[in-house]
Amino acid sequence: MSGADAVGVGMIGLGTVGGGVAQLLREHAELYAKRCGRRVELRAVVVRNTEKARSSGLIDAALVGNDSTRLQQDDIDVVVEVAGGVDSAYALVADALRAGKHVVTANKALLAAHGPELFGLAREHGASVAFEASCGGGIPCVTGLTFGLMSNAVRGLYGILNGTCNYILTEMTQKGRTYAEALADAKAKGYAEADETLDVSGADAAQKLAVLASLAFGVSVVGDDVSCEGIDNLDLADVRFGAELGYDIKLIAAAECSAEGDGLFLSTRPCFVSADTQLGQVHGADNALSVVGDAVGHVMLYGPGAGRGPTASAVVSDVLNVAAGWYPQAFAAMGLTPDLHAPADKRDSADTVSRFYLRLEVKDVPGNFGRITTTLGEHGISLSAVMQHERKHAGDAFVPVVVTTHACRQGDLRAASAELKRLDAVAGTPVVIRVLDAGG
Amino acid sequence: MSGADAVGVGMIGLGTVGGGVAQLLREHAELYAKRCGRRVELRAVVVRNTEKARSSGLIDAALVGNDSTRLQQDDIDVVVEVAGGVDSAYALVADALRAGKHVVTANKALLAAHGPELFGLAREHGASVAFEASCGGGIPCVTGLTFGLMSNAVRGLYGILNGTCNYILTEMTQKGRTYAEALADAKAKGYAEADETLDVSGADAAQKLAVLASLAFGVSVVGDDVSCEGIDNLDLADVRFGAELGYDIKLIAAAECSAEGDGLFLSTRPCFVSADTQLGQVHGADNALSVVGDAVGHVMLYGPGAGRGPTASAVVSDVLNVAAGWYPQAFAAMGLTPDLHAPADKRDSADTVSRFYLRLEVKDVPGNFGRITTTLGEHGISLSAVMQHERKHAGDAFVPVVVTTHACRQGDLRAASAELKRLDAVAGTPVVIRVLDAGG
Repeated sequence: MSGADAVGVGMIGLGTVGGGVAQLLREHAELYAKRCGRRVELRAVVVRNTEKARSSGLIDAALVGNDSTRLQQDDIDVVVEVAGGVDSAYALVADALRAGKHVVTANKALLAAHGPELFGLAREHGASVAFEASCGGGIPCVTGLTFGLMSNAVRGLYGILNGTCNYILTEMTQKGRTYAEALADAKAKGYAEADETLDVSGADAAQKLAVLASLAFGVSVVGDDVSCEGIDNLDLADVRFGAELGYDIKLIAAAECSAEGDGLFLSTRPCFVSADTQLGQVHGADNALSVVGDAVGHVMLYGPGAGRGPTASAVVSDVLNVAAGWYPQAFAAMGLTPDLHAPADKRDSADTVSRFYLRLEVKDVPGNFGRITTTLGEHGISLSAVMQHERKHAGDAFVPVVVTTHACRQGDLRAASAELKRLDAVAGTPVVIRVLDAGG
Repeated sequence: MSGADAVGVGMIGLGTVGGGVAQLLREHAELYAKRCGRRVELRAVVVRNTEKARSSGLIDAALVGNDSTRLQQDDIDVVVEVAGGVDSAYALVADALRAGKHVVTANKALLAAHGPELFGLAREHGASVAFEASCGGGIPCVTGLTFGLMSNAVRGLYGILNGTCNYILTEMTQKGRTYAEALADAKAKGYAEADETLDVSGADAAQKLAVLASLAFGVSVVGDDVSCEGIDNLDLADVRFGAELGYDIKLIAAAECSAEGDGLFLSTRPCFVSADTQLGQVHGADNALSVVGDAVGHVMLYGPGAGRGPTASAVVSDVLNVAAGWYPQAFAAMGLTPDLHAPADKRDSADTVSRFYLRLEVKDVPGNFGRITTTLGEHGISLSAVMQHERKHAGDAFVPVVVTTHACRQGDLRAASAELKRLDAVAGTPVVIRVLDAGG
């Protein structure tokens, strides 16, 4: 922090979020001065097109084209990165940190790829990196998880961290739309990018989970550590059967301790959650993070996961916490970030113990139902619910049989499922979806 | 903070919460040393009965009877107050602050009565007061609201802040119990005190709201500023009619800006919330805090509102944040606490604009229904839903008529309600319950 009275902010990017940040800093200048004890001034913005940016009328600060050295000058204390992307953001952020500037970033892809390196660079140069906006949009999940729940040995994180997926799944559940229909609608409404791959594959949620799991478990996790199953192969039939059983389908990013506490299960996959739980009530583009801690039990943080206002809320809160001086001290004193930690000891998902939903297409002849339940029983899997409807059309050779299991090892279920697939009585590949109970 | 490597903690009280604090500090000593960069050691505990406390086997620290000067010695950096009560807690906490010790307290009654004075005393002596556990048990609502949502001009707080009330209301809603039956059950299960008055009158929730509203709106609010309506007069009939309309009844502690932003409405009262919203899904003894901010929109924090583990989670998180050094800096630098603020400019609840539920007992003769809707219309109140069932028994002279209104001034509804009461067609006093839409 410079010795001057006011705190100087430089920003990289003036898109949707950057515009929101500029607007908040202008509109709430007096409020923020009161809250941090110092004025917070936006002094320079690096943009691709200075003409276009100037015509926005959003800011009085200097607009800089390619010359990012402006952000390294003495009158800049904090650099806000809201440009997105990985490579160019990396170069600009690293330069700012080397110049001793504190960095506030909303960029989970950057942190998932280069987090430990950037955190280390900050330490080396007496700076800090704040990143509340990188996960869960406007929800104060980083602050809540680190400082608010600091006393807990965390047992599990269960997040709805991708608004695009949650919007699509909500449309499928509530309006009976197919995946393709719901995706088209999400694109039309601006909830999904032209190329939806990063969102629907689960990769975006995995990047956010990597950031949160690093903090919660005191290990170094990168996005690639998370096993990813997207929502793009989801069949509307399963969404409907789940609903009949009282479940809503959600893309859940989960980080869980093994029972022995010596390893992490990291996954992003569609899961069924009870419709009448907190996670089950997260609809549309909203996000949520459930935290299960050994002392606190189950806590959930809920709110808007993206958008101009919510993301700017998180970015500017970080800026104010840096400006007040406490965040840099917390960053330096507390061993929270993954640069200080060993890589996570990942556990094989076969050892995950959970309830599951299983759908089989079964030949409708006597004895087949018994053959299936016997096979499951032989693998130590006991059933919680069973559902078989009458055939829709007299000519149907196969009918869907849906079962939910009591808690079992995922590896055992996989083995049972592989054996069921080989039966003549069963057509195609059984569908397996995890059932998540409240609070994990 | 003393210059020593380890941080010394003194504690007042070793009851349910104190025992939990001692246990966490012992079990997680290594984890905490890693997270704060310093060991955190419980060194002295002030208890009423040292013999009883020693036999608990919970702690190795010195046990002190009446001699609270032990907490003012050099090897104590942080004093934890978990004894409860107001007067004796006040004296002990004030002495600790005068000795320059940081204080962590779970005592909302103490803060509601003496908050500004104690915060001021801390500033004067270079100390700080942390109080996450005073509101919402294990939910990180103070941390989330202040640091995580720092950038927002808050428009409204809507909290379910009393687990006893929420337990009773959940029993009434889900099991059709009367208030008296549900209260007896809550006492039998330990969710309600022998004297339930503080909880069911709304006074406890009002104290917590005072703490949170002070932070959110940058004003000084005390418990008495909050208009209180308890749950003890609630009729099961209204709970049932509400359920038919899709609403759950909750005791909501609300702090809301006037539309002009120049005053606060502060109330604790039973409200209907849609059953399929986040607040509607807060059942049993759980708590939640909805925050509506100008930038972020609607965020909710949910979790256990009381109990040994959750409360100890919040207390120890505060201790660690103080031990790491950042919290005292934030306390000193940021103008967040009510000792720095003017008293709240309270607004008359007549100006609250909201939707309402109204139940009238109406004489079942032609024309009466029209008379009622006409009276409401004359006061500018338009109806959202109307419900009148057939009489249960042929001899019933009066039948209940339930209406929900579109948004209207509460003062207008009161005037209409008083006029309706004077009609021959209406028996008794109309029942008015606020209907709270999602996110306020």
